[in-house]
Amino acid sequence: MKLSTDNYKGVRDFYPEDYRTLEYIFATWKKVLKSYGYEQYDASPLEYTEIYKQKSGEEIVNEQTYTFTDKGNREVSLRPEMTPTVARMVAKKSKALSYPLRWFSIPNVFRYERPQRGRLREHWQLNVDMFGSDSIFAEVEQIKIAHNILIAFGLNDSQFTIKINNRKLLNSFFADTNLSEDQQVKVIKLLDKRSKLENFDEKLKEVAGTNFKFNPDIDEETQAIIELLKKRGISNIEFDPYMVRGFDYYTGIIFEIFDTHPDNNRSIFGGGRYDNLTQIFSNDNVPAIGFGMGDVTLQDVLETYDLLPKFEDTTILYLAPLHQNFIEQTMTLADDLRKEGVSVLVDFSSKKIGDQIKKALTKNAEYFAVIGDTELYNKKLTLKHLSTKKEKKLKFKSISKFVKKNS
Amino acid sequence: MKLSTDNYKGVRDFYPEDYRTLEYIFATWKKVLKSYGYEQYDASPLEYTEIYKQKSGEEIVNEQTYTFTDKGNREVSLRPEMTPTVARMVAKKSKALSYPLRWFSIPNVFRYERPQRGRLREHWQLNVDMFGSDSIFAEVEQIKIAHNILIAFGLNDSQFTIKINNRKLLNSFFADTNLSEDQQVKVIKLLDKRSKLENFDEKLKEVAGTNFKFNPDIDEETQAIIELLKKRGISNIEFDPYMVRGFDYYTGIIFEIFDTHPDNNRSIFGGGRYDNLTQIFSNDNVPAIGFGMGDVTLQDVLETYDLLPKFEDTTILYLAPLHQNFIEQTMTLADDLRKEGVSVLVDFSSKKIGDQIKKALTKNAEYFAVIGDTELYNKKLTLKHLSTKKEKKLKFKSISKFVKKNS
Repeated sequence: MKLSTDNYKGVRDFYPEDYRTLEYIFATWKKVLKSYGYEQYDASPLEYTEIYKQKSGEEIVNEQTYTFTDKGNREVSLRPEMTPTVARMVAKKSKALSYPLRWFSIPNVFRYERPQRGRLREHWQLNVDMFGSDSIFAEVEQIKIAHNILIAFGLNDSQFTIKINNRKLLNSFFADTNLSEDQQVKVIKLLDKRSKLENFDEKLKEVAGTNFKFNPDIDEETQAIIELLKKRGISNIEFDPYMVRGFDYYTGIIFEIFDTHPDNNRSIFGGGRYDNLTQIFSNDNVPAIGFGMGDVTLQDVLETYDLLPKFEDTTILYLAPLHQNFIEQTMTLADDLRKEGVSVLVDFSSKKIGDQIKKALTKNAEYFAVIGDTELYNKKLTLKHLSTKKEKKLKFKSISKFVKKNS
Repeated sequence: MKLSTDNYKGVRDFYPEDYRTLEYIFATWKKVLKSYGYEQYDASPLEYTEIYKQKSGEEIVNEQTYTFTDKGNREVSLRPEMTPTVARMVAKKSKALSYPLRWFSIPNVFRYERPQRGRLREHWQLNVDMFGSDSIFAEVEQIKIAHNILIAFGLNDSQFTIKINNRKLLNSFFADTNLSEDQQVKVIKLLDKRSKLENFDEKLKEVAGTNFKFNPDIDEETQAIIELLKKRGISNIEFDPYMVRGFDYYTGIIFEIFDTHPDNNRSIFGGGRYDNLTQIFSNDNVPAIGFGMGDVTLQDVLETYDLLPKFEDTTILYLAPLHQNFIEQTMTLADDLRKEGVSVLVDFSSKKIGDQIKKALTKNAEYFAVIGDTELYNKKLTLKHLSTKKEKKLKFKSISKFVKKNS
């Protein structure tokens, strides 16, 4: 009986060709974040379950997390999101840290839900956070970064739109109505699902009564942020009072970025201000704002707009010994070249040169060279550039200089 | 009641200063592997438990893995090691892959054991494997890579030693004795623990009888590999018939690298040939050899030899607006500079310049500049190089060229 080669349901294997795409996404994220002076951190996917219970929304903890009890009777979860972890880390060293913190991480996060397009059980998620600033310039910087990331992947302003709202605005709007707290929660849940509901107005009346009208006007803070961003060249941002976002921990500005593609008006990612989250761990009040962006949705978007390059393997020099007897000396030559900074692969299959060239092509090697008696005796070889077919005869000791200059 | 800020027992938080060290280790691993033409892959830490049951050794699965049953009644584990995963991935696409494969990955792996120095419940582990070659040059390449990695971290041959043995030698040695299979297993377990046992000889007699002598002579294959490596400049390799390694899946050469430090003769890492592992998944026989190296042990070793550099944050340019009113225009200047490839951090604390300089120093910024009325009017600023204190007055449009040239 053979075992199944399937990976666990809802997760992914990354073969080298898949990993190169992931690596491109990670590298692009990092490049933009570093250009804003953000520092990378990380943590284990294992966390005590309690950190998700207070603020993530109960639904997520009860129905959507991988949670188990360990042998020491501790309730442990695989993190469904990074925000509670980073809040915990900041709270732990709160007194020693130099604010504001500009931090990012690229964790894998786990959700126990039915696998479907763009909603796997595990994905990689960029998390970008600023702790210790309550300036609206923090909002401006975060939204600008989110925008810059999509631009860095090759999107333009017409392909996505940034919707912005303010939890403070919602709170003051509801405070002026006669709705009970329970009704308010129900209205917010309806707003969150609005785009998926056909009978939104009807449902709203059911929940809030026939006299209720949901028509908040934009507040000064949101208005100011939109203006600052428009002045900095962001044309695709708009106020949307219906956009509320799911997590319970948001306290101010929230924003979400949507694909404008006519076939798929999906949410790409979002974030917001969550000033009180560190207080579940400590009395220090550290204002915070952040956003997250998943690799799966992003990759879908890039594919939709044909913006995902095809990444090849990048072997530089492929050395093909003519015969078993030459492998040892070829390996020594390769050692010398590697010391000089050249990436070299030595074929020791002892196959015919034609087969070795074929293999070099699958490895996308830039240069190819045969090593036999003559080459070893003269300490010279002929480098073949595999795509142009051009050849160049070189002394062994001149190879690294030539290859580094011409690749 | 505040929640604890402790991370889950036996795992680690990586604050930015910790992450920079991890990033250095990962980058050094990658650099060496890429120089040999190896390609990176990855997979989820969640795997069906069954893939560990046949070959990893029962002890590991029963006592040392995080295993749970998911809501679909599937038995799932957090991977304790990567080898069964990569064997599964190779078996899955066995017919389509172009051998030999030179693959590596840097997964986190989980062991459910009592946390102690160098033995956490989660660590990062480089995995380097070659599939599809039964040439002894595969052994030579793998051991050379293992050696090169330690050299790349700054160790020299006197600080570590490579021990090599051959499972085939052990098997043929035991075949020539009168020991039962049960006795053989017990002897191997004793050999594995030999360095930790004071009464090894006594225990050996208990298990194998008074006439048993464990004295295998080196075999030709092992001898040939040692000679090939010595010719390539590796002076610190030796045959050690007592070194057997724990995993059940090894079929040929096994090797392990030990610290020679007098205070701590620890095992740093090891590997070996495991030709039959893909056969638990498919009938294709794909020969394989690989090794693994953990970040925790490696970091300990590097600290022992004082080879771990202190990594600083790397903000390039820190812009300090003189007043709240200048933040907006400073951000616009920063946007322009980022487009030209400069990493820029804008302070919007509105604090005194002295405080902004202090913060710039904690961010290890290379250059610092104040932005006020005069600067914005003249479109010129004065860059201060924070370590040399040298100053340079520059037009806004000349900043990026200057900084990129001088940083």
